[in-house]
Amino acid sequence: MNAVIDTINNRISLRKYDDKDISSEHLKIILESSIKAPTAGNMMMYSIIKITDEETKKKLSITCDNQPFIAKSKVILVFVADMQKWYDYYELCNIKNIKTPGMNDFMLSINDALIACHNAVIAAESLGIGSCYIGDIMESYEIHKDLLKLPDYTFPAAMITLGYYPNNYQRKFRERFNIDYVVFDEKYKKLDNQSLKSMFENKEQNIPKTNPYGADNFGQLIYTRKTNAEFSKEMDRSIRVAINSFTGGICDK
Amino acid sequence: MNAVIDTINNRISLRKYDDKDISSEHLKIILESSIKAPTAGNMMMYSIIKITDEETKKKLSITCDNQPFIAKSKVILVFVADMQKWYDYYELCNIKNIKTPGMNDFMLSINDALIACHNAVIAAESLGIGSCYIGDIMESYEIHKDLLKLPDYTFPAAMITLGYYPNNYQRKFRERFNIDYVVFDEKYKKLDNQSLKSMFENKEQNIPKTNPYGADNFGQLIYTRKTNAEFSKEMDRSIRVAINSFTGGICDK
Repeated sequence: MNAVIDTINNRISLRKYDDKDISSEHLKIILESSIKAPTAGNMMMYSIIKITDEETKKKLSITCDNQPFIAKSKVILVFVADMQKWYDYYELCNIKNIKTPGMNDFMLSINDALIACHNAVIAAESLGIGSCYIGDIMESYEIHKDLLKLPDYTFPAAMITLGYYPNNYQRKFRERFNIDYVVFDEKYKKLDNQSLKSMFENKEQNIPKTNPYGADNFGQLIYTRKTNAEFSKEMDRSIRVAINSFTGGICDK
Repeated sequence: MNAVIDTINNRISLRKYDDKDISSEHLKIILESSIKAPTAGNMMMYSIIKITDEETKKKLSITCDNQPFIAKSKVILVFVADMQKWYDYYELCNIKNIKTPGMNDFMLSINDALIACHNAVIAAESLGIGSCYIGDIMESYEIHKDLLKLPDYTFPAAMITLGYYPNNYQRKFRERFNIDYVVFDEKYKKLDNQSLKSMFENKEQNIPKTNPYGADNFGQLIYTRKTNAEFSKEMDRSIRVAINSFTGGICDK
């Protein structure tokens, strides 16, 4: 189609990287592309932490649900939803009775961070640098807060690992759901049981006959492995604590 | 540099569109690029509502903080964080005592939705189709829930307007903060007052001497126009209600 569409469509989540370090020229292009991202009210309510320190990468590989490949990536970028600098600036500007950040600030800064992050992902991809999103950065809030020195009015919204594709790397594309179950016309369409069966048909056919979860079907497998897994419960807890810190207690208002 | 980096860097938020409708071929490419986006656990916890109905566009132009240009866009895409279909599928799979979605489900589906949305934005841009993010879709939860027929375990995380760039359109690029105040090495760096002054120096120089807000400086201007504005308070309220609906009451756990 065109180079942009091709880049988007050929991207995979890369978890194995070439030994070569990311060139400073390429990293500069990635970061500069990132900060060009659209941002609510041009406020850029995010910060980017660029991590190359081996010790920190190793710690993150453990705290982010024990995924050793994280430590082997060349650069980690953490995109932090950040109202802290705005609030510090507001204080400097002699604003009286500054209100504590609200859920609007939390969500807009999350959006800003994600959008900037995805600019980095696509820019990187176009330079032969693969990436993987690590949602687990939203777990273990207290540990990550301490590790990355995050102040209260921030939240680590997204993390990506980066590294060049290995030579002759064979990309495996994961199948997406049929677009008919994802894109709806004009209104949301609640899927009935027949539609849900069709949507998940391919997934059902590919589950192993025996599995360590005792799952009889794909739904039971994913519920156990993902939705109801220990890491999910930890992420739930962690985000609740983070939001309380960011907003001065969501439940008190 | 390359076509991808150029596309990312030349994008602006477009609020004025050519009269020409978006071709069905282009719209298909945009939506197919969107669903190729990375997604947590390959679960695609989002849905996309494609809106071309004039009445709905007009309503959204009012409910989204009264921005008439929204009604003049050719297509609106709303990216919905969506755990509803997973929960409906879990029921179909005979899972007992399915837990109500947690903040982990909420945030992962928000991330999924934003990332898919930004794939659409960049794919569109490469086809000469401009876009504008409308954060205001997170306001007026009850109204948007009714308008778009959103079930409880969903949330309208992002909305974009789309339309071709007008002929000979002169792009105006908005200045971003200097990258030194956005990208930090290894840890978060809390900015001291001197750094904050430097960060906001250009902004301070460009504020109008008289303004309807009685602001003496840029911080006071933005605090009044954005952070403490009525639409922000409404967004704060709206998101709290939405999260309670999505998680069955964040404060009860």
